[in-house]
Amino acid sequence: MLLSDKISPEYIKSLDLAEKKQLCEEIRAFLIEKVSGTGGHLASNLGTVELTVALHSVFDTPEDKIVFDVGHQCYTHKIITGRYDSFGTLRSSGGISGFPRCSESEHDAFIGGHSSISVSAALGIAQAMKLEGKPGNVIAVIGDGALTGGEAYEGLNNIGRDCGNLIIVLNDNEMSISRSKGTVADYLTRMRSTRSYYDKKEAVKEFLSHSPVGKEISKSLSGTKDLVKFAIYQSNIFQILGLKYYGPVNGHDLGKLIEMFEIAKITNEPCIVHIKTKKGKGYKPAELNSGEYHGIPRRDRRSAGNRSFSEIAGRTLAGYAGNDERICAVTAAMKYATGMEHIAQNFPERFFDVGIAEQHALTFCCGLASQGMLPVFAVYSTFLQRCCDQLLHEASIEKKHIVLFVDRAGLVGEDGETHQGIYDVPMLTTVPNTEIWSPADEATLKLCVDRALNASDGIAVVRYPRGLCHTGYAAEYQDFFYERSEPEKADTLIVTYGRISRNISGIKGADTLTLLKIFPIPEEAAETAAGYKRVLFFEESMKNGGIGEKFLSAIYERGFSGKYRLTALTAPPAAADVDTQLAQAGLDRAGIVRAVNDN
Amino acid sequence: MLLSDKISPEYIKSLDLAEKKQLCEEIRAFLIEKVSGTGGHLASNLGTVELTVALHSVFDTPEDKIVFDVGHQCYTHKIITGRYDSFGTLRSSGGISGFPRCSESEHDAFIGGHSSISVSAALGIAQAMKLEGKPGNVIAVIGDGALTGGEAYEGLNNIGRDCGNLIIVLNDNEMSISRSKGTVADYLTRMRSTRSYYDKKEAVKEFLSHSPVGKEISKSLSGTKDLVKFAIYQSNIFQILGLKYYGPVNGHDLGKLIEMFEIAKITNEPCIVHIKTKKGKGYKPAELNSGEYHGIPRRDRRSAGNRSFSEIAGRTLAGYAGNDERICAVTAAMKYATGMEHIAQNFPERFFDVGIAEQHALTFCCGLASQGMLPVFAVYSTFLQRCCDQLLHEASIEKKHIVLFVDRAGLVGEDGETHQGIYDVPMLTTVPNTEIWSPADEATLKLCVDRALNASDGIAVVRYPRGLCHTGYAAEYQDFFYERSEPEKADTLIVTYGRISRNISGIKGADTLTLLKIFPIPEEAAETAAGYKRVLFFEESMKNGGIGEKFLSAIYERGFSGKYRLTALTAPPAAADVDTQLAQAGLDRAGIVRAVNDN
Repeated sequence: MLLSDKISPEYIKSLDLAEKKQLCEEIRAFLIEKVSGTGGHLASNLGTVELTVALHSVFDTPEDKIVFDVGHQCYTHKIITGRYDSFGTLRSSGGISGFPRCSESEHDAFIGGHSSISVSAALGIAQAMKLEGKPGNVIAVIGDGALTGGEAYEGLNNIGRDCGNLIIVLNDNEMSISRSKGTVADYLTRMRSTRSYYDKKEAVKEFLSHSPVGKEISKSLSGTKDLVKFAIYQSNIFQILGLKYYGPVNGHDLGKLIEMFEIAKITNEPCIVHIKTKKGKGYKPAELNSGEYHGIPRRDRRSAGNRSFSEIAGRTLAGYAGNDERICAVTAAMKYATGMEHIAQNFPERFFDVGIAEQHALTFCCGLASQGMLPVFAVYSTFLQRCCDQLLHEASIEKKHIVLFVDRAGLVGEDGETHQGIYDVPMLTTVPNTEIWSPADEATLKLCVDRALNASDGIAVVRYPRGLCHTGYAAEYQDFFYERSEPEKADTLIVTYGRISRNISGIKGADTLTLLKIFPIPEEAAETAAGYKRVLFFEESMKNGGIGEKFLSAIYERGFSGKYRLTALTAPPAAADVDTQLAQAGLDRAGIVRAVNDN
Repeated sequence: MLLSDKISPEYIKSLDLAEKKQLCEEIRAFLIEKVSGTGGHLASNLGTVELTVALHSVFDTPEDKIVFDVGHQCYTHKIITGRYDSFGTLRSSGGISGFPRCSESEHDAFIGGHSSISVSAALGIAQAMKLEGKPGNVIAVIGDGALTGGEAYEGLNNIGRDCGNLIIVLNDNEMSISRSKGTVADYLTRMRSTRSYYDKKEAVKEFLSHSPVGKEISKSLSGTKDLVKFAIYQSNIFQILGLKYYGPVNGHDLGKLIEMFEIAKITNEPCIVHIKTKKGKGYKPAELNSGEYHGIPRRDRRSAGNRSFSEIAGRTLAGYAGNDERICAVTAAMKYATGMEHIAQNFPERFFDVGIAEQHALTFCCGLASQGMLPVFAVYSTFLQRCCDQLLHEASIEKKHIVLFVDRAGLVGEDGETHQGIYDVPMLTTVPNTEIWSPADEATLKLCVDRALNASDGIAVVRYPRGLCHTGYAAEYQDFFYERSEPEKADTLIVTYGRISRNISGIKGADTLTLLKIFPIPEEAAETAAGYKRVLFFEESMKNGGIGEKFLSAIYERGFSGKYRLTALTAPPAAADVDTQLAQAGLDRAGIVRAVNDN
């Protein structure tokens, strides 16, 4: 065994190529075993074992900086750089993060989590190193999926020739989380295959044959095959963007990778190394279905989620789409995760997967809406943050009727700080002409979807959490549900919304009010609450800018003068399971009971 | 005179080419005369007269849809489509908007204001028209500056071959608001010049001479000039993205433009028409200094602004940069408008203009900060909305010390709804590890800059308005300024921050509290306010999620039980001068006095 707690970047450099290859296999086996237990991103990490070992064979972290885009492919890097022993704590409370974190290790050059930021971050690091006279290379590792995000292009567009220490590794695994979308992805596919060359050549000839000058050139084309081939590769998109281009290289050929990185290291201009990898490499089930093995849950939690909020939302929407031809569904590379495959299967012409491009997705929705279509953008809460401006500028001002399905709203568990769905409420409540519904269970989810689709104009939002959706019991439209614990009105009123509403039913000594429409706050709900001596508001969202702050304003205006206590998030929680995160925030049943009893 | 109130798309189609050319000159004269009076964007509109007349010669709005990117170049379009008579009301209260607005005319296909959205919007429109079986073309008019924004690339990347009715007009005027930045801009420059062809050819030969195969090809290269030229144009970046490419065309040659658009109209695949225009065309002062004539103020307001908040912030920062080598300045194509030219002149190696790319700008700052630099991102409030996710994800979690100079915060006047700086406070207060200062005048601006630069970690924000900065009188660090109107404490306390603080001094019958540090709310300020019978909070920002909501929570916790009234924005105001907008919102002195007297 070469893999042990002695593993380090220096140790890797002491091995010969055969040993390094053996180490890769051992790391692969270690990943399969460990991640099967802890849960986490398996397929992408199996695909980047050789890549990571090759990087640590050639470069010296922390002096050289490796920025992993998205970052969920950093497991081998973590194992190599001091986190072999703690790897069993991956993504658990008090354990190591599933993403690169500067605060966790000096070998993690930059935070990971969200997509398409690595080139921009690497450029900032490279410029700082230049200003400070520090030696070393900066390596951005970016997948073909992340390359569809606009910020990646903004970064590429800003690479100056003065950043000679910048190396971009394009990890091209021919798919993002769903399949890569768009013409750049197509282009990469063309670059990958030799067949493309002939296609291109034919297209060139075909084009030339239509112009008089072209006909001349066309004739001589058969004799200049190599020149055309050269022209295609020489003028590839990365070279247009000013980068020296190396590749494509087989990303599982460790020797070739090391060789290529050695060349890149001594190249005195910004360069891109294009490598081809296979997600799930070396583990047949993951190779065959990398989507399913993209993120796997913890071993002891496999049963949940077979009837998730996402799944029900997707099925419900597909049902409405059958009766309303205006309904379109838009996703940013999350077709399956958001349950939108149902509308995709049944109404493919009204389904749009735009790749990791949330800004485009939102503006595209507004374009659809401007012509009378009814677009539904299904997006994770944490990725909705990417299109804040588009909501304010394109959607809100002209009161376009668009619908947002905000998935993974609230606490998300093991992904930790970078993925918590706790900012959508503050963000959306600031956008004029927005209504927000927050269902607690299956029955209310269906009600909310109906309400959002039938809104007359403006932005209609349904936000729901990750995971299991209970059946529920709501039978009719209501903006809120109010219940007394005894026939007599109690002194204390508990107010909440969303999934945690389940935690308040039947608590003694307090009446309850569950908001279904959370914004604008239903006036009657505020009237009802204003008459209590004590109001306790529980919110699975950020405190600043959340509904709880607004609820106090609303009831204060209506004469409330009692005790008001708001329990909500003040920071994004680190990795832990959702139940633990809810308990830590005082949002579980025990926390709520404690608050009721704490006079 | 051909230009009269009879002007319409149909009228234009009835003219012959010579008449159309004459019309262009008349429109140009009309623009110079009118915009000199009303204020507005002059240079860009002078540059797009022929382009717009050509579009309306070939296409039929509203069946065909024209989407103007950014949109401030839409004046000729407005004149042609029913707004000739009302053109004198441009950008004034109750008048027509300086940007395309669907609510203003059916000829305005999509809202304009923010950059880089036109391709995405046009794609949504095109897909909707396809689904609805509507005929017609969709034309996105995008400048080379807007092309540096990531969303433009996301849009381009999503153009499928099924959008045969999509035409992109690249209006290439060789500069964005400042000069275009980045390698794509360089690439366009190369494409524009014939010289580039020879440079490229030399580079190709040079490259080839280094490889054995290449040497062979190199030898025969001199005989295949046309083929190489073809290869360069055939494989340009737009063709890689799947677009049929036409151009470049002289954008002031009306005949050629019309011809090109006729071809584009019958092209059954998505295409790009690349035209070259000159900002300020036909008006020498604007041609020579298109920056100065980019946006001009109303004739009666020319004197203001010679000592603006931006200017003082920029000069102050440059002063600090002389003593602290960690300080860097970053701008997104707003070097002069944000006063950052002072640091650019004195410390060019620490100044970065990244083009219209706010997402990249923020992540780039975090990269700089990760290596111990102290980046300052100077950005308009309304464009800060573009990097909400980057603030939450890259900046906040790891507590990077970055500084934001949020310029044009508050009401901005004539640009109207699309540019109001009223969302930054709700957005920033939701981001953990953020502190916000809001100066009222020059003295407090300097204090705030000092505080932000000396913050220990996290995001430190200084937000200040557009326009004239009064001298002020603050001499020492304070989080807030509290003043009694009489020796005895009054019943009423007025609380506010920022520029409108000037409106509260010396109001009878009320004490005053001006926040300088607006978030987190200074505890002592909340303590002070909690003791009043009545608190009136005035805020030049959105009500939902603003400081006023949080202030009520803070004083309520401290036992406040009096009357609380919050005056703030509930929607972005339409075009008017700032004084009018403030008065309409009840934030002028008269409004505040009214509120004090209204018991």
